[in-house]
Amino acid sequence: MATLISPTQFSAGADAEALHKAFQGWGTDEKSVIAILGHRNVHQRQQIRKAYEAQYQEDLIKRLESELSGHFERAIYRWMLEEADRDAVLANVAIRDGIKGYNVIVEIASVLSPQQLFAMRLAYQNRYKRSLEEDIASNTSFLIRQLLVGLVSSYRYGGEEINAKLAKTEADVLYESVKQKNGNYEEAIRILTTRSKTQLMATFNRYRDEHGSNITKKLLDVSSDEFHKAMHTAIRCLKDPHKYYEKVLRNAIKKGDEDALTRVVVSRGEKDMKHIKELYYKRNSVHLEEAITKTTSGDYKKFILTLLGKQLE
Amino acid sequence: MATLISPTQFSAGADAEALHKAFQGWGTDEKSVIAILGHRNVHQRQQIRKAYEAQYQEDLIKRLESELSGHFERAIYRWMLEEADRDAVLANVAIRDGIKGYNVIVEIASVLSPQQLFAMRLAYQNRYKRSLEEDIASNTSFLIRQLLVGLVSSYRYGGEEINAKLAKTEADVLYESVKQKNGNYEEAIRILTTRSKTQLMATFNRYRDEHGSNITKKLLDVSSDEFHKAMHTAIRCLKDPHKYYEKVLRNAIKKGDEDALTRVVVSRGEKDMKHIKELYYKRNSVHLEEAITKTTSGDYKKFILTLLGKQLE
Repeated sequence: MATLISPTQFSAGADAEALHKAFQGWGTDEKSVIAILGHRNVHQRQQIRKAYEAQYQEDLIKRLESELSGHFERAIYRWMLEEADRDAVLANVAIRDGIKGYNVIVEIASVLSPQQLFAMRLAYQNRYKRSLEEDIASNTSFLIRQLLVGLVSSYRYGGEEINAKLAKTEADVLYESVKQKNGNYEEAIRILTTRSKTQLMATFNRYRDEHGSNITKKLLDVSSDEFHKAMHTAIRCLKDPHKYYEKVLRNAIKKGDEDALTRVVVSRGEKDMKHIKELYYKRNSVHLEEAITKTTSGDYKKFILTLLGKQLE
Repeated sequence: MATLISPTQFSAGADAEALHKAFQGWGTDEKSVIAILGHRNVHQRQQIRKAYEAQYQEDLIKRLESELSGHFERAIYRWMLEEADRDAVLANVAIRDGIKGYNVIVEIASVLSPQQLFAMRLAYQNRYKRSLEEDIASNTSFLIRQLLVGLVSSYRYGGEEINAKLAKTEADVLYESVKQKNGNYEEAIRILTTRSKTQLMATFNRYRDEHGSNITKKLLDVSSDEFHKAMHTAIRCLKDPHKYYEKVLRNAIKKGDEDALTRVVVSRGEKDMKHIKELYYKRNSVHLEEAITKTTSGDYKKFILTLLGKQLE
């Protein structure tokens, strides 16, 4: 369930006008920007963008970028893009971030459905005039390249069929890969990048049954270079995206990492953020909004809390 | 240009009826089957299939399989499928063929446009309930896996932009890869599997300018294990599919390889077969039809010649 609160009735024209007014005069009326855009779903935001363009011959996103600043500007910018386009931007930023961006690439490629991932690849090409796999491959090498390129290029089968025998064999292959330091990871990469999510779930369950622990646990016992971390992230995203996102939020709040906080809230606010919030409370005994209130400030804070379902004032 | 001759006016119902009649009685009237299906384009064939199913509550393709036999049956079967589905079948057969099927996988992945390749991957999943990349990856290993999985999973950028500097750098990378026996092929695979076809063309041209010979030439000088052969096929398909197909036909006729002959004629008969035929004549000083007439026989021969534009009788 989403945390975003958006009206069933709305007028794109009236919203465009109100935003235009918020940009006028001395400074920007950020409160109005949040009150409007923080309460509109993706279709409504696209309609507002179109209405604004038609009424004022100006791109609303560009105007917002020039009116706002800092983390707030960045969050609004990401929020205004359609999902596939937003993920393409996030992936491109991640590629340019080098090693510290690997987890974002893995997250996007592993959480999205095959259809969503493919739509994102098309959006990436449309925006950057190159393919996503091309940019990742030319910025990485060896195992991490194989893993990242495999994850983004694959179009996993989406059916619910499970091959139980295969789950056992491949659980063993993963166990061998994980157990051996500097082991042969080619097979682990193959399994993680090409099998259907349903099949992988069966494999991970089998792993746990046979070897008495979660595959993710053993994985970071062994080593924790960039490749192992990326494998770890991939498995966590494939196994349980909600639990994964809860941890991203927890770390983001601990480290004051607004980029990660923005990414999760903006990406999931219209989808399953309620569930992630519940997991957060269960794990930390503190409400997510409370933790965010303590660690962020200003318009950015107001905007993020709005997307989390808080009615301001 | 196509070699297939199909009528602008036709009745799917009448064709279905005529085919039904051809199946009646003692033996099958293969001549009628060829006269009808050998002169219908892909849309018409699909309409006939539907009409037949509606009129006789029977799948036309299944019926054809039971009525016909040998190479003729196989050719008709492939001809009756829609393009993406046919390529999915060809790819699946190639995977099961092991090493000798690698060239077919490379051919399909390298000749098709990104859109066609993606449609084929969807058709593959629909038919086999697994992904194409999954089946290839689990039947191969090391370099050949990287190359084949990379070729089929990539969705190349389709734009016409060329980065001249990159063409030079990557021509040099390819040269180094090709020059060194047992060299590091990871970079060569990356370039061949991810760059846009337009960019690759610029890179191959640059290679020729700088190193005085075609990249394909040097490649088979070095070695000719399965991986080198697959690289060679990929480059030839990416560079000049018509020239590539001419050679497939030449070898098929020389070796009596009906599967390869069928594959090219059935795949290209509605597309660019005229051009391939012209190249064949240029290279061999013999008309393709003449060469086929000499090396094949029976209904198979009649059907292939029909697809090549020959009006029988």
